[in-house]
Amino acid sequence: MTGPAATGPADPVLVVGAGLVGTSVGLALRRAGARVHLQDHDRSALVVAGSRGAGEIGALGADGRTADGYDVRLVVVAVPPGRVAEVAAASLAAYPQAVVTDVASVKAEPLRVLAARVEPADIRRYVGSHPMAGSEQSGPWAAAAELFDGRAWAVTPHPTADAAAVTTVAALARGCGAQVVTMSPDEHDLAVARVSHLPHLLSVLTASQLLAAPTEHLRLSGQGLRDVTRVAAGDPALWRQILVANAAPLVQLLHGVRDDLDALLAGLATGDPGVTAVLDRAVDGTRRIPAKHGGPPRVEAVVWVSVPDRPGELARLFADAGDSGVNVEDLRIDHDPGRPTGLVELVVQTEAAGRLVEALGARGWSVHR
Amino acid sequence: MTGPAATGPADPVLVVGAGLVGTSVGLALRRAGARVHLQDHDRSALVVAGSRGAGEIGALGADGRTADGYDVRLVVVAVPPGRVAEVAAASLAAYPQAVVTDVASVKAEPLRVLAARVEPADIRRYVGSHPMAGSEQSGPWAAAAELFDGRAWAVTPHPTADAAAVTTVAALARGCGAQVVTMSPDEHDLAVARVSHLPHLLSVLTASQLLAAPTEHLRLSGQGLRDVTRVAAGDPALWRQILVANAAPLVQLLHGVRDDLDALLAGLATGDPGVTAVLDRAVDGTRRIPAKHGGPPRVEAVVWVSVPDRPGELARLFADAGDSGVNVEDLRIDHDPGRPTGLVELVVQTEAAGRLVEALGARGWSVHR
Repeated sequence: MTGPAATGPADPVLVVGAGLVGTSVGLALRRAGARVHLQDHDRSALVVAGSRGAGEIGALGADGRTADGYDVRLVVVAVPPGRVAEVAAASLAAYPQAVVTDVASVKAEPLRVLAARVEPADIRRYVGSHPMAGSEQSGPWAAAAELFDGRAWAVTPHPTADAAAVTTVAALARGCGAQVVTMSPDEHDLAVARVSHLPHLLSVLTASQLLAAPTEHLRLSGQGLRDVTRVAAGDPALWRQILVANAAPLVQLLHGVRDDLDALLAGLATGDPGVTAVLDRAVDGTRRIPAKHGGPPRVEAVVWVSVPDRPGELARLFADAGDSGVNVEDLRIDHDPGRPTGLVELVVQTEAAGRLVEALGARGWSVHR
Repeated sequence: MTGPAATGPADPVLVVGAGLVGTSVGLALRRAGARVHLQDHDRSALVVAGSRGAGEIGALGADGRTADGYDVRLVVVAVPPGRVAEVAAASLAAYPQAVVTDVASVKAEPLRVLAARVEPADIRRYVGSHPMAGSEQSGPWAAAAELFDGRAWAVTPHPTADAAAVTTVAALARGCGAQVVTMSPDEHDLAVARVSHLPHLLSVLTASQLLAAPTEHLRLSGQGLRDVTRVAAGDPALWRQILVANAAPLVQLLHGVRDDLDALLAGLATGDPGVTAVLDRAVDGTRRIPAKHGGPPRVEAVVWVSVPDRPGELARLFADAGDSGVNVEDLRIDHDPGRPTGLVELVVQTEAAGRLVEALGARGWSVHR
């Protein structure tokens, strides 16, 4: 029988919902040394999550205490968006000593519903949150302790939340390996409307124009089209829930998009400089996106290398790139099974690209920018 | 003194314009064994292209013949879109034995201007084309013989083009390593409006909405936003030329987008099933995009692997993935300089993902889907 961890996330933790995110929270908390309990009305999901080591099943008493006599200190509600308020209200009632949070991708509407259901004294123990991580997969099999590593995790206190509850939820996020970003529920919803839901919808609008195209036309597709439309392949049922739950800020942004679209339509026909103005604003917009791990935006360059399709060639390339002292930020392989070589894109900081080209060229690689 | 190559692209070739595409055409043709001459009124670009081995400079006589007495058989016009018709007309006049092509990204409008300038007998020797390859860089330093390898190259004959001229231009594309896609100039312009210019504009509309966002909101940015907005960072001056030159089909598609946008705006406020209909159509649209090298669309899955930031670990991962017998189609590194491990995304065919996860897990990698 051990006491609560002296540092790290508060525990014992109860995770309600053994899907992708709930199971990953359990795995990440276990990695951090916390005691985790799991609940889900889907028994098979629960068994999978338990077998993967995400937490204990059935070891909480009717009094909301663990078998060794500890009160649950934190409940993480990881259920579909439409059920968050109901499960959070039940958790506040069942675990009167616990802080309650959820991980849904929209924050203002569930809070409004929850606040109408519970006593003002109880809502103080609720602080919503939203880890900016996911996967194209779903369910406990797709879960991973590493899912949140280095990702942003929004913590969204309402005005009457207890300061200690905010601290507890922030410690949960950090304990899972994430970086905490604190903002109000309304701010959060506007932010994700802009950086996630709007990009999704414009990707959808691009992809839906492809249906009418002759197959031959699509042979001219390039990487630009693949990049713009990648997210549009996401699950329509899930996305409809998210978009409808966040309709207000999204509709506001879409009106701005329609104004820009009308300006483009007017300008294109006449070669008007208004077209350039929209293109210029977009370039400035892309420069505001932070680098992958929250650092300031960085200007990156791509270096292309032809790599023979023989075992060991990629390993040799990475060794040579490593010896050059240039940090490779990202890479892509463009491999054509029908050809004897593949093209590898190495993404590096612009000022280092020349050095990398020179170093690889000196070792006999066919390389260009 | 050697005769023209018995197989492969017709030569001698004259490439007019020593920018990225022109210099790359020269390098690719030289790789294929063809004789190449270069011209550009920008002397410094010309010298760079020559020094890189893209072709000979100043060795064409006033009679349009090479020093060793051969007629130029093919002229590749690789100048900015606005100058294509003028340079193509001059080339048809100066090289009466030659086929003339260009590599601009819009085909109908330059053809219309050219046809108004030259005799019907001469226009038969002109066949436009468009290699679907580029780079974020420009100029002869960024050129590469490999630029067109495995890419589509549209060949766009007009109704009065000589069959032999079409064959010559198709052989040029194949000689540069590309795959030929033949269609009319109007079809080409509609196809690129849909697969390139429209995605560019919707990426632009997404990115321009970022300007008004508080910096803190942008901390919630994820890979989806980066993917959708990547192309919006492209050169506004160049894109304005392309978009205005292809305004007619683009405006037609943008009206379709505006109809979809209005349906979304109407549906979002009421949770209407029309939202799902647009999302469903988009999923179907993404499934029509061919795989990278022109094969049928394939369903791919992502496998995530945590890789310790130590020399040799990536090489060991590729060796282990290779041993599993699963073909890695693409990969990305998500490397956080502040953390001791990086996440590597391996893109594989869906049916092989389970096998890869198992094989890597058995060798001790921390891996998930």
